[in-house]
Amino acid sequence: MRSDIEIAQQSEMLPIKEVAKQLNISEDDLELYGKYKAKLSDELMTKVENNKNGKLILVTAINPTPAGEGKTTTSVGLGQAFGKLGKKAVIALREPSLGPCFGIKGGAAGGGYAQVVPMEDLNLHFTGDFHAITSANNLLAALLDNHIQQGNELGIDPRQIVWKRCLDMNDRVLRNVVVGLGRKADGVVREDHFVISVASEIMAIFCLADDIHDLKRRLGKIIVAYTYDGKPVTADDLHATGSMAALLKDAIKPNLIQTLEHTPAIVHGGPFANIAHGCNSVRATKCALKLADYVITEAGFGADLGAEKFFDIKCRMSGLKPDAVVLVATIRALKYNGGVAKEDLVNEDLEALKRGIVNLEKHIENLQQYKVPVVVTLNSFVTDTEAETEFVKNFCEERGCDFALSEVWEKGGEGGIALANKVLNTLEKKESKFELLYDDSLSLKDKIQTIAQKIYGAKDVTYSVAAERELKKITELGFGNMPVCMAKTQYSLSDDPKKLGRPTGFTMNVREVYVSAGAGFVVVLNGAVMTMPGLPKKPAANNIDVDDNGVITGLF
Amino acid sequence: MRSDIEIAQQSEMLPIKEVAKQLNISEDDLELYGKYKAKLSDELMTKVENNKNGKLILVTAINPTPAGEGKTTTSVGLGQAFGKLGKKAVIALREPSLGPCFGIKGGAAGGGYAQVVPMEDLNLHFTGDFHAITSANNLLAALLDNHIQQGNELGIDPRQIVWKRCLDMNDRVLRNVVVGLGRKADGVVREDHFVISVASEIMAIFCLADDIHDLKRRLGKIIVAYTYDGKPVTADDLHATGSMAALLKDAIKPNLIQTLEHTPAIVHGGPFANIAHGCNSVRATKCALKLADYVITEAGFGADLGAEKFFDIKCRMSGLKPDAVVLVATIRALKYNGGVAKEDLVNEDLEALKRGIVNLEKHIENLQQYKVPVVVTLNSFVTDTEAETEFVKNFCEERGCDFALSEVWEKGGEGGIALANKVLNTLEKKESKFELLYDDSLSLKDKIQTIAQKIYGAKDVTYSVAAERELKKITELGFGNMPVCMAKTQYSLSDDPKKLGRPTGFTMNVREVYVSAGAGFVVVLNGAVMTMPGLPKKPAANNIDVDDNGVITGLF
Repeated sequence: MRSDIEIAQQSEMLPIKEVAKQLNISEDDLELYGKYKAKLSDELMTKVENNKNGKLILVTAINPTPAGEGKTTTSVGLGQAFGKLGKKAVIALREPSLGPCFGIKGGAAGGGYAQVVPMEDLNLHFTGDFHAITSANNLLAALLDNHIQQGNELGIDPRQIVWKRCLDMNDRVLRNVVVGLGRKADGVVREDHFVISVASEIMAIFCLADDIHDLKRRLGKIIVAYTYDGKPVTADDLHATGSMAALLKDAIKPNLIQTLEHTPAIVHGGPFANIAHGCNSVRATKCALKLADYVITEAGFGADLGAEKFFDIKCRMSGLKPDAVVLVATIRALKYNGGVAKEDLVNEDLEALKRGIVNLEKHIENLQQYKVPVVVTLNSFVTDTEAETEFVKNFCEERGCDFALSEVWEKGGEGGIALANKVLNTLEKKESKFELLYDDSLSLKDKIQTIAQKIYGAKDVTYSVAAERELKKITELGFGNMPVCMAKTQYSLSDDPKKLGRPTGFTMNVREVYVSAGAGFVVVLNGAVMTMPGLPKKPAANNIDVDDNGVITGLF
Repeated sequence: MRSDIEIAQQSEMLPIKEVAKQLNISEDDLELYGKYKAKLSDELMTKVENNKNGKLILVTAINPTPAGEGKTTTSVGLGQAFGKLGKKAVIALREPSLGPCFGIKGGAAGGGYAQVVPMEDLNLHFTGDFHAITSANNLLAALLDNHIQQGNELGIDPRQIVWKRCLDMNDRVLRNVVVGLGRKADGVVREDHFVISVASEIMAIFCLADDIHDLKRRLGKIIVAYTYDGKPVTADDLHATGSMAALLKDAIKPNLIQTLEHTPAIVHGGPFANIAHGCNSVRATKCALKLADYVITEAGFGADLGAEKFFDIKCRMSGLKPDAVVLVATIRALKYNGGVAKEDLVNEDLEALKRGIVNLEKHIENLQQYKVPVVVTLNSFVTDTEAETEFVKNFCEERGCDFALSEVWEKGGEGGIALANKVLNTLEKKESKFELLYDDSLSLKDKIQTIAQKIYGAKDVTYSVAAERELKKITELGFGNMPVCMAKTQYSLSDDPKKLGRPTGFTMNVREVYVSAGAGFVVVLNGAVMTMPGLPKKPAANNIDVDDNGVITGLF
């Protein structure tokens, strides 16, 4: 069997100019990055502004096993299948983070015969967007510490600095650091923290900004610290906004690449799905809708986190309206949710499937709360049996959802035609009456409660003392009308990764709350969230190499 | 008067494809980064391998005033002038570092009507080379700390870690940090340091490597730490080489841009000129020599540091042979070397000029030691008087050097024609019999002594106890045959910035020595060297902005 990188490297890519032609984009509107990558010019964005929007299809998933259930693979394969059917489709995905490539995870370019390429480029520096975000983040930090060093006119309290430095690297020793040691000229000593770049608020802002004007507005509002008097200090206060925006001016142009079958893929932005909203950029999605009849996009983690934030944060802020949702499940994950141990997931087990399918059921109900039609797909594995697949199919159809098996990993677009047809059928027959889960005007606590009860199935919510205090402060500062961005485990509908299936009667525990004032949401942490990963005992980096001809091996 | 960025933005650039045509490079051999930047493909490097080499012209300078004397401006203008004369010329420059853009310094794209463009791109992310170097540097650091965390099989002594993290940012609080705080899972606590990315050994390696094979060989030899037994631990020992090289595989392709007058400029790499050798990449220079009849390149700081390292490090390792040197002086800097206060430099002062011109004299003599013909140019200022210029001209001609005034800042290529003609005359009439200053086989101390005496004019050299110990250790480890890379002030021929003119009878004090085993030189520090700059009271970042159309202002 060939590895993902082998399949990708053996594929014949089209020059990206040719891929762009499928979307009626002229070469003049491309900013090429080598032969197979391009940024879409600002001029193009203006040119297509008045085009009719295509249909927006969100791909999301049930609560996954730790191995993941193939959302990106399904998105890519579905796009390829649309292509096979002669439909004009674009896939709108997140850019992968560089750091995890060298750890365990590998990349995020799909898999098997449903990948976007060039995968090495995408997983390494790509067009430099994340480096630009890293630079902007760290420029703000440098300006902040320099302000303190140069006399601290704003009265910043070094104990109340909330801005963190970042690197796109898995590097645990940077989680907690002390900076500013040495002599007078070497700065003021304080505790600091690095996060991985995708966890930077600038990443979230980058993905929610409509244009450079909105980008600057949001950047300026970032709260970096509080004064000794408890007043917020923003990036605008540090006069940092313009130079950060200058660092991001090219990065905010969406990137165009292709699938193994030459379907256009716009890959842009990639915020964390816990402390941020986990979706590709608004600009990319909007632009894709103007360029194609069908836009397939995805959101991070399971639907309880990913889809909820896609709807309640991304769609709320941007005015986007999804026309259909594809909910990805696997027999494996359903059995896992039914309590089967990881090593036994390969065996047929209808009883476990019945126990675990309540997880799928809850996600279907959740999505239906948003009044968006749902198509369920099973990302097929060789170990799946016909009886298992049939059971899931019936279960979905009983709940008013179209169902199709997806075999895109093995067969590429061909393996996604059944799913594409179901999606087309749904789009034709069922109208989306998309609505948000909650109003801006609800209090922050009511918003949290609404999500916890209606989406997660919680009985109630408790708050730590610190969270209570912070909610009060955030509301007093005027941020009470913002949506909330929930950070919790992706492995359960609850905040406890061990509660599989469809837990009920549980209490959510809000541990910490803070505002991402530039992104425009209030982050609510239920449990510990890792914002700087570490490397494993045997890092993937040890096996990555490049030969004398520049061919990379071992990336996956 | 228009600012540099205004001149640059108002210039009409040619598509880089057109610029490449001047060098007979087909579009197929370009990897475009937008319309005005491209990387030169590995295939091109192979194709031109057997071309005849053009003439190699090094631009260097006398000891500067703190404002700098316009080496890059002269290099760019000279290239433009060659273009005006119908000669096939390429300029081979260093890439500027991002960090200093936000501080005081501004960029490094030339100035006035002698600039390379697009200047905003060049000064911000350009083609991402420095970000790739930053990533590779920090991946190595992460793998190092992870090795310790995961059991420390190699027995690395955390007190003897010499590898530093880096960022392309002026950020003083990162000079001295403590990392690994927190809990067991957050790593092993140790002292650490960040340098600016251009000070990373990877930058030096990047600029000295012949190809990807040589790059890997050098990366693998980097010493990151010593064991409890005092044995060196290398990047190869950490199995980090392949993944670092993968991160650098595109970055090592030279970048092509253009001057305001469309002269091709290959801009690639940019190591510090103190703890590293301060020249653009060997690959870029070699490639330029295959593509053009005249290659104009520069080296950092004054000739005592820049030219010496260009010759004794870059030429030694790569086999390059300079055909002529252009030595840049200014009336201002000569008077400064004659003891005139900064605020009085605008006034005619022939006596001070006579006192200060000994600095120029020493640099001419130094360059002549390498048996390379020297052309002296005065980068003209409006405050220069005819008497002053005439004096310098006669002084140079008496010493066997062609002389020309350079007015490229004000007039572009037109203002460099006189200089270009002198350079052509020198190339035609005077043969370069280039030779290195010292043999590999000399001991490290003898190498240091040779440079100090023959180039700086020192009487002798003393060593700190630590430097003595380190020289012994480095020699025992087998690095004694490497060239030395001297780090000292650029403002004096000596190691004391206050000793202007042509100091004699002084003693150099070697404070610290370490080996850059991958780069292949032994760094010798005379006095403190800043490897992580800070931001000033009013950072340039405060004035940088980008408007709604993506136009950047305030960069300079």
